[in-house]
Amino acid sequence: VAKLAERGRAVMIGTRNPVSTLANAQPDRLSNQTFSDWQAQHPQIKLGTFAEAAAHGELLLNATTGSGSLDALKLAGEQNLNGKVLVDISNPLDFSRGLPPSLFVSNTDSLGEQIRRAFPDVKVVKSLNTLTAALMVNPGLLPEPTAVFVGGNDAVAKATVTALLKNDFGWQTVIDLGDLSSARGTEMVLPLWVNLMGVQQTSLFNFKIVRQ
Amino acid sequence: VAKLAERGRAVMIGTRNPVSTLANAQPDRLSNQTFSDWQAQHPQIKLGTFAEAAAHGELLLNATTGSGSLDALKLAGEQNLNGKVLVDISNPLDFSRGLPPSLFVSNTDSLGEQIRRAFPDVKVVKSLNTLTAALMVNPGLLPEPTAVFVGGNDAVAKATVTALLKNDFGWQTVIDLGDLSSARGTEMVLPLWVNLMGVQQTSLFNFKIVRQ
Repeated sequence: VAKLAERGRAVMIGTRNPVSTLANAQPDRLSNQTFSDWQAQHPQIKLGTFAEAAAHGELLLNATTGSGSLDALKLAGEQNLNGKVLVDISNPLDFSRGLPPSLFVSNTDSLGEQIRRAFPDVKVVKSLNTLTAALMVNPGLLPEPTAVFVGGNDAVAKATVTALLKNDFGWQTVIDLGDLSSARGTEMVLPLWVNLMGVQQTSLFNFKIVRQ
Repeated sequence: VAKLAERGRAVMIGTRNPVSTLANAQPDRLSNQTFSDWQAQHPQIKLGTFAEAAAHGELLLNATTGSGSLDALKLAGEQNLNGKVLVDISNPLDFSRGLPPSLFVSNTDSLGEQIRRAFPDVKVVKSLNTLTAALMVNPGLLPEPTAVFVGGNDAVAKATVTALLKNDFGWQTVIDLGDLSSARGTEMVLPLWVNLMGVQQTSLFNFKIVRQ
């Protein structure tokens, strides 16, 4: 989000309850800061409700937790989402049985497809769900170029997201996996990803596809 | 298999019906040869029933099709398998709904674990199921080193398989994912693998894990 603002985009973050978000004294797991401290350093980034952020954006990013994504998008409001490109970064991680997480949808369906069925006029593009947040906007943190995937049913929307990935985030290798059913495959990578994070004791890694 | 024989191992291939295997006039998809033509070029490799091959081997490779693996191992006979290391290369691909395949077991269980539950005295090591056969024994076909995974509950068995991968097959990077439940993650990579094969129009590719 900060990366998009740096790039001159007018960014708004939506949460369920912006007042609670600002009052939350719990530091974020990634930034190690409270939201209000973080926002003080990024005054150009607005905070609003899910609905306000959805109405504000031309291009929307769903970075909510997988189990809350459909509810968050309902709160955002179909009328604020329709016709727009939604980059779906979420993963259907199910922590209800403890660690490691399993998936609450997989194999013959995906969270990306569930979102599209719930919001048929939203141009859902599944992307960025196979890597950690710091790398999404800064793939150059790794010593060599790695892969990011896009999948979706709208070619123009995929081209828009691919341009964002390349031009704003610095991705060199964006692999188009085809339609949104490809989200099954990228979401099902998460168990291996979680396993590798544990083995390597870092989330700063990604997959590179090496071919002959 | 030919690679193991080259390396001086006494190799036996087991099939359901060796007479039919030899009489089969259909060329193999990978070698583009009939089995009998292939065997004529590899006279040191024996052919037998599943049970004969299992009795013959110290180290066993399950390279049967996923949907037939449990049946093939039953035909091999528990008494011929018990106490041995079984490298499970199979994947639970379900072609019954057409292409692309889905998985007949996934998420909270895996084919590797099903095999272990059916044969509790076999030391199952899941490995090599995330890449195409030609690369399994020849990772140097790719322009840079890529990753192969091992998962299993017996540390000595995993060390045996890791040594085979490194010394006989030439793998530099063997990542130990932990116990056999890690087979869920590696088997669930297959839908992305199949998708990438289609997009790239080649099966000669593999994943490299790039970390900071």
